[in-house]
Amino acid sequence: MSVIKLTVVGGGSSYTPELIEGILKNQDILNVSEIWLVDVKEGEEKLAIIEKLANRMVKESHTSIKIVATLNRREAIKDASYVITQIRVGQLKMRKYDEYISIKHGVIGQETTGAGGFMKALRTIPVILDICKDIEELAPDAWLLNFTNPAGIITEAVLKHSSVKVIGLCNNPINFYKKFADIYHVPIEEVSINFTGINHLIWITGLFINGESKIDDILTGKSQSYEAKNIPDFGWDVDFLQSLGAIPCGYHKYYYQTDKILKEQLEQYKENKTRADQVQEIEKGLFELFKNPDLTHKPKELDQRGGAFYSEAAINLICSLHLNTGNIHTLNVRNNGTIACLPDNVSIEVNCVVEKHQVTPMLVGDVSPQIRGLLQHVKAYEELTIEAAVKGSWNLAFQALAMHPLLPSTDVAKKVLNEMLEVNEHYLPAFH
Amino acid sequence: MSVIKLTVVGGGSSYTPELIEGILKNQDILNVSEIWLVDVKEGEEKLAIIEKLANRMVKESHTSIKIVATLNRREAIKDASYVITQIRVGQLKMRKYDEYISIKHGVIGQETTGAGGFMKALRTIPVILDICKDIEELAPDAWLLNFTNPAGIITEAVLKHSSVKVIGLCNNPINFYKKFADIYHVPIEEVSINFTGINHLIWITGLFINGESKIDDILTGKSQSYEAKNIPDFGWDVDFLQSLGAIPCGYHKYYYQTDKILKEQLEQYKENKTRADQVQEIEKGLFELFKNPDLTHKPKELDQRGGAFYSEAAINLICSLHLNTGNIHTLNVRNNGTIACLPDNVSIEVNCVVEKHQVTPMLVGDVSPQIRGLLQHVKAYEELTIEAAVKGSWNLAFQALAMHPLLPSTDVAKKVLNEMLEVNEHYLPAFH
Amino acid sequence: MSVIKLTVVGGGSSYTPELIEGILKNQDILNVSEIWLVDVKEGEEKLAIIEKLANRMVKESHTSIKIVATLNRREAIKDASYVITQIRVGQLKMRKYDEYISIKHGVIGQETTGAGGFMKALRTIPVILDICKDIEELAPDAWLLNFTNPAGIITEAVLKHSSVKVIGLCNNPINFYKKFADIYHVPIEEVSINFTGINHLIWITGLFINGESKIDDILTGKSQSYEAKNIPDFGWDVDFLQSLGAIPCGYHKYYYQTDKILKEQLEQYKENKTRADQVQEIEKGLFELFKNPDLTHKPKELDQRGGAFYSEAAINLICSLHLNTGNIHTLNVRNNGTIACLPDNVSIEVNCVVEKHQVTPMLVGDVSPQIRGLLQHVKAYEELTIEAAVKGSWNLAFQALAMHPLLPSTDVAKKVLNEMLEVNEHYLPAFH
Amino acid sequence: MSVIKLTVVGGGSSYTPELIEGILKNQDILNVSEIWLVDVKEGEEKLAIIEKLANRMVKESHTSIKIVATLNRREAIKDASYVITQIRVGQLKMRKYDEYISIKHGVIGQETTGAGGFMKALRTIPVILDICKDIEELAPDAWLLNFTNPAGIITEAVLKHSSVKVIGLCNNPINFYKKFADIYHVPIEEVSINFTGINHLIWITGLFINGESKIDDILTGKSQSYEAKNIPDFGWDVDFLQSLGAIPCGYHKYYYQTDKILKEQLEQYKENKTRADQVQEIEKGLFELFKNPDLTHKPKELDQRGGAFYSEAAINLICSLHLNTGNIHTLNVRNNGTIACLPDNVSIEVNCVVEKHQVTPMLVGDVSPQIRGLLQHVKAYEELTIEAAVKGSWNLAFQALAMHPLLPSTDVAKKVLNEMLEVNEHYLPAFH
Repeated sequence: MSVIKLTVVGGGSSYTPELIEGILKNQDILNVSEIWLVDVKEGEEKLAIIEKLANRMVKESHTSIKIVATLNRREAIKDASYVITQIRVGQLKMRKYDEYISIKHGVIGQETTGAGGFMKALRTIPVILDICKDIEELAPDAWLLNFTNPAGIITEAVLKHSSVKVIGLCNNPINFYKKFADIYHVPIEEVSINFTGINHLIWITGLFINGESKIDDILTGKSQSYEAKNIPDFGWDVDFLQSLGAIPCGYHKYYYQTDKILKEQLEQYKENKTRADQVQEIEKGLFELFKNPDLTHKPKELDQRGGAFYSEAAINLICSLHLNTGNIHTLNVRNNGTIACLPDNVSIEVNCVVEKHQVTPMLVGDVSPQIRGLLQHVKAYEELTIEAAVKGSWNLAFQALAMHPLLPSTDVAKKVLNEMLEVNEHYLPAFH
Repeated sequence: MSVIKLTVVGGGSSYTPELIEGILKNQDILNVSEIWLVDVKEGEEKLAIIEKLANRMVKESHTSIKIVATLNRREAIKDASYVITQIRVGQLKMRKYDEYISIKHGVIGQETTGAGGFMKALRTIPVILDICKDIEELAPDAWLLNFTNPAGIITEAVLKHSSVKVIGLCNNPINFYKKFADIYHVPIEEVSINFTGINHLIWITGLFINGESKIDDILTGKSQSYEAKNIPDFGWDVDFLQSLGAIPCGYHKYYYQTDKILKEQLEQYKENKTRADQVQEIEKGLFELFKNPDLTHKPKELDQRGGAFYSEAAINLICSLHLNTGNIHTLNVRNNGTIACLPDNVSIEVNCVVEKHQVTPMLVGDVSPQIRGLLQHVKAYEELTIEAAVKGSWNLAFQALAMHPLLPSTDVAKKVLNEMLEVNEHYLPAFH
Repeated sequence: MSVIKLTVVGGGSSYTPELIEGILKNQDILNVSEIWLVDVKEGEEKLAIIEKLANRMVKESHTSIKIVATLNRREAIKDASYVITQIRVGQLKMRKYDEYISIKHGVIGQETTGAGGFMKALRTIPVILDICKDIEELAPDAWLLNFTNPAGIITEAVLKHSSVKVIGLCNNPINFYKKFADIYHVPIEEVSINFTGINHLIWITGLFINGESKIDDILTGKSQSYEAKNIPDFGWDVDFLQSLGAIPCGYHKYYYQTDKILKEQLEQYKENKTRADQVQEIEKGLFELFKNPDLTHKPKELDQRGGAFYSEAAINLICSLHLNTGNIHTLNVRNNGTIACLPDNVSIEVNCVVEKHQVTPMLVGDVSPQIRGLLQHVKAYEELTIEAAVKGSWNLAFQALAMHPLLPSTDVAKKVLNEMLEVNEHYLPAFH
Repeated sequence: MSVIKLTVVGGGSSYTPELIEGILKNQDILNVSEIWLVDVKEGEEKLAIIEKLANRMVKESHTSIKIVATLNRREAIKDASYVITQIRVGQLKMRKYDEYISIKHGVIGQETTGAGGFMKALRTIPVILDICKDIEELAPDAWLLNFTNPAGIITEAVLKHSSVKVIGLCNNPINFYKKFADIYHVPIEEVSINFTGINHLIWITGLFINGESKIDDILTGKSQSYEAKNIPDFGWDVDFLQSLGAIPCGYHKYYYQTDKILKEQLEQYKENKTRADQVQEIEKGLFELFKNPDLTHKPKELDQRGGAFYSEAAINLICSLHLNTGNIHTLNVRNNGTIACLPDNVSIEVNCVVEKHQVTPMLVGDVSPQIRGLLQHVKAYEELTIEAAVKGSWNLAFQALAMHPLLPSTDVAKKVLNEMLEVNEHYLPAFH
């Protein structure tokens, strides 16, 4: 078994300590030799804090992993075995704009869904493709695990415009597994879930506990599904779930309960307290904790941050890849016919068999019309968004946003787009 | 050439005089022997008025067509060469409910698009399939020309649940041809239009005048496209048209300009003056005119009614079928792969080559993502609507309406659905 | 874990002792309670021999499995957990006709490929569908594991014309795994093979030993692939393998080396010594051995029979199903888009993830044109064969055979067909 | 209406006089101003003969078309309205090798089907793509009408590797129309034929005379179909036709009656008298006639040459394009989903609506398995052939030939290939 050089792009992120913790837990089977944490100039200070914490954690664990923190991305990527991207172009400051401009025009403002996710994608795609050029040149055999949101769109951009071996990863699926294992008091291995969809728009069409179907428990409201903490929770209408015949994920609420959520967001907006504001505050607190020279493990306050089990999902995946286990993970990969109603070249989020040399999706086939309409609509929006970002095309960007189901008209889409482009000017050289 | 027995189901409709006029104009090539006008008991009075007017028109034209008005549908259908369906189940009274219940809950109220069209489909599908059983038995070789709205959904219901040779017909396409012939001062034969889409959601992706592309004239606002009189007209944003790269039809405004139209509808609703109210008034006036024993031709006031050139489209189609011309008509037919991104078994509205023995769609292939997302979304809604109607399933009806892009949430969809089902109880035996 | 009732249709087959042996080996994890061996009147004598041997084997193993031998198929199937079908309609006598009539007309004569397999399918399909009716009624939750050849066609017939949960099984894949594990001195778990194709026409497009690609070793002739003992072996042209870019299975030789094999078969035919003759002799010898009251285990002479590791493949599969392992098996299942160039409703042979409640194919996607042409041609032949058998249609049977790539003309196809139908008259009531 | 510059690449062909005749007949509606005949150095002498004959024909017709004969291809192509390619790379000399090498190894030897067509394609594709580069640069708006055989493969090569607006043309379809018009004593406009397939492998699935189905007349042998003079005619087995449910074209016989035709070819081969020999003799005689200074029209002996009505088909097509008629022609175009079971990017031969600005295929959809298997098999061979020619890949060439249904084994394919490549060395620079 070869040794591992693991590179984390966006290494100064508050998520990194959890990732380090996950590696340390599995170091006996993974045998990681080096972890490179790379970040941009603006993140230098945070990176230094994380570096020190990481070194304290390694020391505490009595392992011998070398931690390298650097602003030199090419050096960090060179000969990496795995590259993890968890970047936030424009930091939380730009996320705040994404949310505020949306809500101001009466449109859902959200980090990954709708106008907010659209703008985040426009900012992020040029950067991720630039990173991929480095990987193509300096670590062509590396697997790229992309966490960066909107993870489905970002992964698809890489699939379409790069030769890098990319896998998109989200914490939604692992949370469902954990939730159902918890409900049914079984180990996670006895939970089998059939997922259908795309990142942050994923339906559960089958739930089996050790071979026995349990989905009706959820559809009838007998048991509760997993609900992400960062998404408003007004509960599900049981009639709706039963007629849908599938369990939606949390992000579906932005489509299925648009009116209620928008109302709540408008109130938060008035009080200057949207999700972006909350996260900024949490982050500040976390880094204060991270600075503590006595801290030698991930602080429990990190759980508030959202993204629960992200790093567990990532470490599990790296283990399966590295040990060639053939285990099943729910991942963002090229469709290629797996979901019959979507184009071949788009990213989807489905169960995959993970081997060292390949990640193979398990067939989904046809999906019900209940699922199909919204799924196809949002995917077409995603395709346009990627094309707009890559070409720097205002026309395509306008069409992408105008056709998104959460935009009430082309007029509103145009206003939102133009205001967003203005404040993001610095991040969008291709649009000039 | 065999003689023609033409049967009009919904013969008491105010559209019938125009149809009669069209036949009379082409009688030298068509040689129609009998026109059967059949209607239901509730329409008996109107049918009698139309019958008399039709007889006066025939007499005036010095042709020898036999007009038969009857409530006996089976007799009317027996051995028909062509059956035309232009029925309105529940009459204008129920249309009013369709519109009012929608708007009351903040949802676009429209005869064919959204919640209104959904409810009209639920009422109409059982009746049309019943008519088709008669055709299967009594006139299996007849072509069924369906005008009944929502024409795409109704045609698809017949394609899926009957062996009748059905063609769905709308006046949208012929109006585009006439408009462009008019703009460019050419005969209609020199206008070539590439249509892509489904009934009332059809995009023009190519416009050629005698082989020369003219679509940019419309996309840049240099010339105006056709706008139906019965749809609000706030004009098109030229930036939007250019980035779309295609000319939308009037019904697209319900999706692209939802906010403005809804605002207008809410005002009309408060004043008790929606489109249903307007049409009821127009209808009343028309039948007063029709009663005039001196009237021997279609009155020009009929043009106000909407549906301009419907009957011209129908007569042109019958001529092409009967004379085996191989001409091109824009029709609602089974997709079968014509539009690559839609299922095989759904109805689409595209250019077709019309021969006596077959109607063959001309290939469309892939459509741009700008068009694809909305098209697929609405089509999935249509499929669910048909399945709900055929099975009498509340669950499927709820899903159909909940997933429609114009509904703001599943909660609103549920309220609208339940109120609509209540007032339509009489028309929906399968739902009991 | 529930107890297992295992039913073997064709229980009097010479393969049964190996199956019993496999169960006994895994009895600690499987906990089989009853094995029912059912056969037809003509097989009564053999069944009795097998029954006794099975009982001796069970006794020797100190387990408590109950063996029941019966001619009452319905009783045997009732409440079965797993049904295994390994029948040979018309016994080896009819196989001899299949081979002789083919070769006589200058056509490859083979048990599963070409005219021979075609005739075996026509005889077998009505019987298997009859068995499936019993399963639908008496054991609707049972998994049917079909070994009966031509396994791909028989499995497809069940998929298309029954609701039984069927899995088709062949020993080709397991032999490849064993061969490559042997070559590379690794346990079978470290061998990963990408299979593409249909039963007895399966290509290996990827071979990995613990994540490292090894296919070039085979394509360049550095190592040998698995070659079935019952197929002539003239070796592979290395230029051919390299330009194919995939490893063919043994049955490909009937297509790729038709001239040589046909020449050999014509010689065997003249000497009255085709494969059918050889097998008849082997069978006779085996049953003599089986009668020996001192025999308490599978005799090693069984290996000569062909079908090596059939029962191991079957027992492995039952273990995965019963224990819900999520392991990968190479199985015959409904395509459903797994192989992009084949229809949805046909059977294919690909890697599948096996869980207690479902068997899910792993995506294959597009295949190279080198593979595609022959694969599609043979599959179309298979579809016609099934339709011919189900409808009892001479026309479809003629077309199936005439279009098979191994038939030199429609004239020869007609002669072969008519002679075969004549001697098989008794087995084809639907054709009368 | 703009004036026409018509360029004939391969202008020295014996077909040219018929083409000139066709243009002269339609000159009142076409108004051709210049016809450029261009050929290669080896064809200089023939070109001079044709030039003189063409000038005599124009003079006789009292029109004013300018005839230009030249070896300067670029000048000939510059600003052309229509380019016609009717080239024969390697002349009839190489065709003779194509046939002889095939037959010598027991393989059908034919100009367009099997090994012969394969070799002709390898020689021709580099030349046609070179011509297309000139058209792209010098006449980007020109329509390219490709007659060059194998017309389907050549057209597909252009569709895949050039941006030229290409249409492939064959005389098979027009001959069917003429034959059926003749049988039923109707003008050709009253014949409607549904074609499905690819060039020289095209099935008729529907035949209608003025709307009435007549296909059963042919399938039952009541009437005869069109049989090309240059293909052996042993008649059709009526049982075969009826079970096929479609009318095959002449070239199908090479697949359906391989044994008989091969036997005949082997005899011709022994006598040194294959089709290539016959054609060489006919050609010699024709040019003798063409030289006659008194000849001012196409000599009737030209009919012996094969290719009947080629030029009529071409002129009809040019008329439809130029006059924007919207008429239906049977043409080789990009599939794009028209025939559901074939890839999007291949050429097919189907009915198309011809307008000045576009040629749109009429939908075919699914085809029966009787047709599908062979069609897909041959198309995969064609795709490989094109890829081999473009890449100059021996491996792909070997695979293309080895997988062709008429080759009995990979061994024979290899021998045929290597002998062919040797004698064609001069024409295949990419293979060196």
